[in-house]
Amino acid sequence: MLMRMSTLFVRTLREDPADAEVASHRLLVRAGYIRRAAPGIYTWLPLGLRVLRKVEALVREEMDAIGAQEVSFPALLPREPYEATGRWTEYGDGIFRIKDRKDADYLLGPTHEEMFTLLVKDMYGSYKDLPLSLYQIQTKYRDEARPRAGLLRGREFTMKDSYSFDVDDAGLEASYARHREAYVRIFDRLGFDYAIVEATAGAMGGSKSEEFLARSEVGEDTYVRCTRCDYAANVEAVQVRPTEVAASAENAWGGAPAAHVEDTPDTPTIARLVEHLNAALPREDRPWHAGDTLKNVLVMLKHPDGTREPLAIGLPGDREVDQKRLEGQLEPIEVEPFGEADFAAHPALVKGYIGPGVLGEEGASGIRYLLDPRVADGTRWVTGADEEGRHSVDLVAGRDFVADGTIEAAEVRDGDACPHCAEGTLESARGIEMGHVFQLGRKYAEALGLQVLDENGKLVTVTMGSYGIGVTRAVAAVAEGNHDEIGLCWPAALAPADVHVVAAGKDPAIFEAAEKLVADLGAAGVDVLFDDRAGKISPGVKFKDAELIGVPTIVTVGRGVVDGVVEVKDRRTGEKTELALDGAAAALAERVAG
Amino acid sequence: MLMRMSTLFVRTLREDPADAEVASHRLLVRAGYIRRAAPGIYTWLPLGLRVLRKVEALVREEMDAIGAQEVSFPALLPREPYEATGRWTEYGDGIFRIKDRKDADYLLGPTHEEMFTLLVKDMYGSYKDLPLSLYQIQTKYRDEARPRAGLLRGREFTMKDSYSFDVDDAGLEASYARHREAYVRIFDRLGFDYAIVEATAGAMGGSKSEEFLARSEVGEDTYVRCTRCDYAANVEAVQVRPTEVAASAENAWGGAPAAHVEDTPDTPTIARLVEHLNAALPREDRPWHAGDTLKNVLVMLKHPDGTREPLAIGLPGDREVDQKRLEGQLEPIEVEPFGEADFAAHPALVKGYIGPGVLGEEGASGIRYLLDPRVADGTRWVTGADEEGRHSVDLVAGRDFVADGTIEAAEVRDGDACPHCAEGTLESARGIEMGHVFQLGRKYAEALGLQVLDENGKLVTVTMGSYGIGVTRAVAAVAEGNHDEIGLCWPAALAPADVHVVAAGKDPAIFEAAEKLVADLGAAGVDVLFDDRAGKISPGVKFKDAELIGVPTIVTVGRGVVDGVVEVKDRRTGEKTELALDGAAAALAERVAG
Repeated sequence: MLMRMSTLFVRTLREDPADAEVASHRLLVRAGYIRRAAPGIYTWLPLGLRVLRKVEALVREEMDAIGAQEVSFPALLPREPYEATGRWTEYGDGIFRIKDRKDADYLLGPTHEEMFTLLVKDMYGSYKDLPLSLYQIQTKYRDEARPRAGLLRGREFTMKDSYSFDVDDAGLEASYARHREAYVRIFDRLGFDYAIVEATAGAMGGSKSEEFLARSEVGEDTYVRCTRCDYAANVEAVQVRPTEVAASAENAWGGAPAAHVEDTPDTPTIARLVEHLNAALPREDRPWHAGDTLKNVLVMLKHPDGTREPLAIGLPGDREVDQKRLEGQLEPIEVEPFGEADFAAHPALVKGYIGPGVLGEEGASGIRYLLDPRVADGTRWVTGADEEGRHSVDLVAGRDFVADGTIEAAEVRDGDACPHCAEGTLESARGIEMGHVFQLGRKYAEALGLQVLDENGKLVTVTMGSYGIGVTRAVAAVAEGNHDEIGLCWPAALAPADVHVVAAGKDPAIFEAAEKLVADLGAAGVDVLFDDRAGKISPGVKFKDAELIGVPTIVTVGRGVVDGVVEVKDRRTGEKTELALDGAAAALAERVAG
Repeated sequence: MLMRMSTLFVRTLREDPADAEVASHRLLVRAGYIRRAAPGIYTWLPLGLRVLRKVEALVREEMDAIGAQEVSFPALLPREPYEATGRWTEYGDGIFRIKDRKDADYLLGPTHEEMFTLLVKDMYGSYKDLPLSLYQIQTKYRDEARPRAGLLRGREFTMKDSYSFDVDDAGLEASYARHREAYVRIFDRLGFDYAIVEATAGAMGGSKSEEFLARSEVGEDTYVRCTRCDYAANVEAVQVRPTEVAASAENAWGGAPAAHVEDTPDTPTIARLVEHLNAALPREDRPWHAGDTLKNVLVMLKHPDGTREPLAIGLPGDREVDQKRLEGQLEPIEVEPFGEADFAAHPALVKGYIGPGVLGEEGASGIRYLLDPRVADGTRWVTGADEEGRHSVDLVAGRDFVADGTIEAAEVRDGDACPHCAEGTLESARGIEMGHVFQLGRKYAEALGLQVLDENGKLVTVTMGSYGIGVTRAVAAVAEGNHDEIGLCWPAALAPADVHVVAAGKDPAIFEAAEKLVADLGAAGVDVLFDDRAGKISPGVKFKDAELIGVPTIVTVGRGVVDGVVEVKDRRTGEKTELALDGAAAALAERVAG
């Protein structure tokens, strides 16, 4: 395959696009791979489309290799199946909704669990038909509140989504494992530096799930890994380690004195409170610190149907509520601030001095009250006494107050104990979510009635897995991980061409030699991008374009032609070598193959 | 590539789906190629997707061969560009409209002229950049009033659409010719029996356009061809032959007596009128006939913005108004019947006796009045006198009445004179619109400001062509043209496999022999669909499935194995031959290649 720069539909830009926040976005636009059509919606130009198709082909190959079968669903989907599973409502503003000319409701599919479930129900009816894995590489839509970073979070994008169907849990485990292994091969072949982390299931429902995150500072996901063991989890999915809970219950139930209320004037903040405690009520063994206090944070939950509901979260005073972790637990509910008007509507809440006394569905405020797992039964706290300038001291969880449950919403910090091993601590990093594997279980099959006859002729509900790869996002993530200041550096598997040949100079002999080299490369099966532009385009401009576009091997046919040599440059390392023009095509073909 | 029926995601159906009107729909569903997801919206199953991909690959190859470059636009498009060209309104109910969470307007692209125009404007600026041809193979949406016939008229479908950009008319002619030639190659390779016919441009605007119609009784398009010359046109585009107009002006202006009104009691229909004329006012030379009368037909036009406007059409009494021809002229306006309430609102109209006297924008009714070209100046007519039971006789067009213009809305009939040659007559046939080539001209470039600098440094507006192929529709049209009562008969270029191997019988030796044959075929590069189903599936069921699915060559490995032979059946002809098992793979590979 030969592309000539003289006719290729491309224009490189010297300036960064104004709206580009991240390198992949900046460079993919500047090098002429993509163009913005609307916020979060992109057009693929010839160079970009070649890279996209290579990702698709690679993904397809690995999905076929595990026996998954390709199908293709529409993007425009009827409301009813999504109504049956509740997702029509749960997605809230996150999906595009449409009415057709007959006023029937449709959506643009954000993911296709319902449709696959119904299709299998329509076609299959026996355990003998299972296991089954189906996939598609297809356009998806999400009405993101903040489309950002070019292809990394778009509103129209390509995904590979697959779904497994099994008759029992062991089957689901096996299907899940097969997909997971295929994903490992795919991300290895795409050349990613990635982590596989435990994840929450979110709006998908189901139980076990893991994410494949490309390590990247511009990623929207934060994950933690243990410094000792192989534990890694999306920060939304981290669960406080049981031993950490026990350790924080440092004062046994019986050993704590009875709770008592103290005057703590002008202590609406944790810092002021700790200062006051150390001055007015000094402890013998060690000074008071923020971790001794129980902070009660109020937020307002917005349900997909628009209704609002307050929530109180009790957590140690030295930690903040992590909004993403909180939302991860509550999805599809959104979390909004608890404003002045909300405080006014709940007069039992004394701002700065809120204590467990008024919280809980049984409390004076009636507000649901959930505790961080560290506030375990038996742990002792200083907390608000629900009066201006007063705090309760020696308040023991479980003895002096109870809540409506627990929630994992406190921030995770570097140095926190690993929830998996005994000794390690957690450290955080950022990543781009490239893939996600879920054990959905029977949620969708139950909602939509997907049952098959088992070996004994009894109807059983099918158990499902759901597996996604962001295909357009992969292009951006590879670009994010493979560039330098001057341009892209594609891995060979995804580059739009194998070799970029630059005809540098005006001498007709140079163009003749370049044309011959390009023809020989084509005959040897090498994909070439050939900068054959004549006229005013200087060699300097051509080199800049080649470095921006990022084909792995750049061959300059220039003045060396008189000496029978061309220059070969490795785009990534910058290493340059000379190559005899005679036999250059064969040598380059070997280099490309190797 | 090997597909095994034991695991392939397919279920053949013995019964026709209830909603299937045409053979392709019936058979593609029954044979497990597609499944309905919603009205006019289909899911592609593994067998169907293979055929679809083959069509796409073939189209892509021919587009690349003429130097068109592939890009990929989003389907979700912003309103503004379509507003600029007027199509946001013109499409009326025909497109899907969406509001995003910020209340911004989007549409699902029915075709992408605006977006391509803007992209080229964004990237190119000089005549040196042209000519340019771009294409995409992409999902399109139309909110059809009556989605029908399965894939033949869907609401979500795949199209190849391309666009050419030239600096002058000669360039557009050349680009148009190149696309037209590529289309000829594509439809030849797809194995279509097709006609290339003159077409109207419809909502696209522009000048010259032609359609590629697959000949088919179930097609929605009617076209005519000349019995003598190579003239062919969509019936919507047929223009009445000038000589026919002249011939119908049989009475010269001067030769006609003055117009006079006659009592014609109880003659509200043409038939009754002609009967009355022959009885009461017999002519010497020949009897009165319907073609001597001028019929004035009223319709109600519905504009895309919802406003309604009456229109009167005057045409010879022996012809009806052809609604599709009329709508073809008026697109995007829709045509509705002129109802009782409409008559009531226009008291000047005397039903059954409407004459030119009250019609026209200057007439008593104020209703716009357009004439069939046969009602040319100088022609003489009998027509309504706008009084109950009275008609005007010897009324001469141009002398006694004038209209607001002409319109090509009269039905075209077999035997009508060919508008192109001197001697031929027209005959009609039906077809499925598979491709359409348009010379758009400068309409879109002007509306969106696509200009380039010409050789003299002057800004000139670019001239464009637009070229479409219905890719999903092609699958259905090929199926429509390649089937019999028992199933599909794919042409080799599009079949989901080259050979369908049926293991017929329970003898393990049969399965062993079949497995070996399939392996050998795979090694020889032959794509195989292998019916390896064991257990209760009888050979009869397997044969029925093979005939329904329609792979061109069906190989039965059965009892003949003991004699070292297999049976080879040509699906289309039904011809059966025996083949020695030894060397069968090589022989079949040769058969497939040939």
